[in-house]
Parts: sequence; C-alpha cells; structure tokens
Amino acid sequence: MKREGVLYVMSAPSGAGKTTLCKEIIDIFPGLRHSVSYTTRPPRVGEVHGRDYFFVEHAEFSRMASAGEFAEWAEVHGNLYGTSLETLKESRAQGIDLILDIDCQGARQLKGRFEGGVYIFVLPPSIAELRRRLDNRSSDAPEVIERRINNAAGEIKEARWYDYIIVNDKFSEAVEQLKSVLIAEQCRALRLIQGLSTIFDI
Amino acid sequence: MKREGVLYVMSAPSGAGKTTLCKEIIDIFPGLRHSVSYTTRPPRVGEVHGRDYFFVEHAEFSRMASAGEFAEWAEVHGNLYGTSLETLKESRAQGIDLILDIDCQGARQLKGRFEGGVYIFVLPPSIAELRRRLDNRSSDAPEVIERRINNAAGEIKEARWYDYIIVNDKFSEAVEQLKSVLIAEQCRALRLIQGLSTIFDI
Repeated sequence: MKREGVLYVMSAPSGAGKTTLCKEIIDIFPGLRHSVSYTTRPPRVGEVHGRDYFFVEHAEFSRMASAGEFAEWAEVHGNLYGTSLETLKESRAQGIDLILDIDCQGARQLKGRFEGGVYIFVLPPSIAELRRRLDNRSSDAPEVIERRINNAAGEIKEARWYDYIIVNDKFSEAVEQLKSVLIAEQCRALRLIQGLSTIFDI
Repeated sequence: MKREGVLYVMSAPSGAGKTTLCKEIIDIFPGLRHSVSYTTRPPRVGEVHGRDYFFVEHAEFSRMASAGEFAEWAEVHGNLYGTSLETLKESRAQGIDLILDIDCQGARQLKGRFEGGVYIFVLPPSIAELRRRLDNRSSDAPEVIERRINNAAGEIKEARWYDYIIVNDKFSEAVEQLKSVLIAEQCRALRLIQGLSTIFDI
C-alpha cells in the first residue's frame, strides 16, 4: 500500500547517544535512510559525496540559501550545513522514510518550513549520567565537557516541543522505543487513509 | 518515572480480529489492563463481577446514565453497556494504562467526554478477506454474515478520525504494530514532560 515518506528529526544534547541510536535504527529498520546534508566543509578521508554529504563550494551554498532552497541551515565551527527542502519533498512524495540528525535550532527552523515531520528528542537518564558518559569518552578536555554539560541544560528545555522523548538509559530499550515510534507513525490514520481508500470505500 | 495512564480505545468491524488482538496485547504488554464495563446483561457461566463486567440492575444503570456517570453507553440486543467516567479518570491519575474494546459509536461518545484517549482502528486487509474470515468462523448464518459485511462497510468509513489504523493481515505483524503504538504513546513528550521536569530543569 503506497503511503507518503516520513521525515524523522532527531535532536539530543551531546553525549545522549543520538548518533549511535541513529546508526542502529538505520541498520535495522527496513527502508529508512539517513538524510544527506549539504556542507561547505571539505570531505574527510573515506567520506563520499552524495552518501555522507553533498560537498559544495561556499558560493553555491550561499546561492542555495538565498534562493530559499534549504529547509534549515546553520554555521558550525565556520562551516555551513544545510538540508535541501527539495530532497525532503521528493522523499516524502516517493514514500521514502528519512532520518535527520540535527540540533534544536535546526529542528526549529525545519518545523517552520516543512510539514509532517516527526520530532524526536533523545535524553540521557540524568545530568550525572551525561557527565559520566562525556568523561568516559575521554576525547574531550575538561573545559569542553563543562561547556557541553552547560549547553545540555539549555538544549533539554527544547524537549518540550518535540513529539517524542526517548530516555536513553539502556541502549537496547532506547532502540526498541525508537523503532516503536517509527512503526507507530507508519500506522497513523492520516498517513494511511489515502492508500486505504483504494481498497476500501473510505 | 511517574506518568499519567493512557486509555487505548480499539474499534473494528466484526471479523477484523480485534478481540484476539486485545487479548494478546494484554497478555504481553506490562501493566496494561482491560477496561471493565458496566452491563445490565446477566453474567454468563464463568464470568466474574468486577473482572469481566460490573453486572448491575437496569434501574442502577439508568441512574448512572442520568447522572452522567458514563463516558459512553449503548444498548446492544436489548442490554445496556457503559464505561464509567470515574474509572477512566482514576486510572489516568494512577498511571494505569487501559484498553477498551468498543464500537465506533461508543468511541465517538467517549472522544467527546474524555480527553487524551488514543483511538486505534483495526482493519481487515480487504472486504474479501473479511468475508472469508466470517465464513470460516462458521458460527454465523449466511444472512448474519451478509449483515456483518454490510455493517463493516459503514464502520470502516469511521477509520478516518481514529489516531491509528492497524491492518490485520498477518496477526504477528498486527500485534507488533499495536505494541509499537503503545510504546510510542508512552514516549510522547506531552506525557513525559511533567515526570522529566523533576529530573531535568524543564
């Protein structure tokens, strides 16, 4: 039965485990794809244009932004990142489910510009556990960890306006919850009615 | 983490498999209970007051209906059936998840009188398959089957205003979908924010 593709927008404070969760769900969920962003950042070793990112020049990115071609865009550490509105619309029309890993500011922009997205916020079970996870990464300097913790407090306030909150305490449970959200959204009457009207007279 | 109980309201045309689906989900889903209705019908062998139904006299049922104590009530084959508004409110406050197996008319009444319910409609994969299932039951006379099929067409039109639609083609998949709806609804930000505000400053 044909239905529209769904856009899942995932946000979380750094250390909540969002990236691992996104990777896992793409591996296990049939047909789900990662939304590919545009960026002005140079490719890293192993990154493939069109798979990891669409790598574009600064001038081309600016042109796209001015022309309103981005559903959201932002500057991070001097590089520009954006999501093409056209790609989102095409995926929706073709019935392709996309997952987009994005910060709260980007998610807010997106919500204003693209209809029908499903917004999911990933939370750590507590600030203490978030700190423990950031400490264990051991990739960040103490002052970076402090900044991340402070930022987290602000980001967590944004959870209010998301559709779903997944508390990532046990990873397997968080995966189960995320998978359930995806299955449940596929069962939403609003998404199914059109397809069903060809089978039943509704 | 404390949260409000959720009321799941299930409707379906006869033969779609709703009853089996409800039984299965109550067996496998932690904490989920069947909502117990009031009825004027006499108890059948093995039925227990307070577990299967609250069996009441006609006069008591009428008093309750007049006093507005039912979230919904209806007459079926000369017997009265109703759902107590107070029970629903108490379960919600106590964090108890309830499942209520009810026809479209009752579900409509309920939606008008009780906030926050989750409405789930179970569909057969096709009218032909519905007919096959009703034929296979072999408990119904041909004219009863015809009436059920005709009723189904009308009931299916009601699917539009439900929150979720589960197409019961393969039973195991329908169970998985129903389970996913329940887990996803537990992850709804609106239901979690209050509980989370005690952990995080949100």
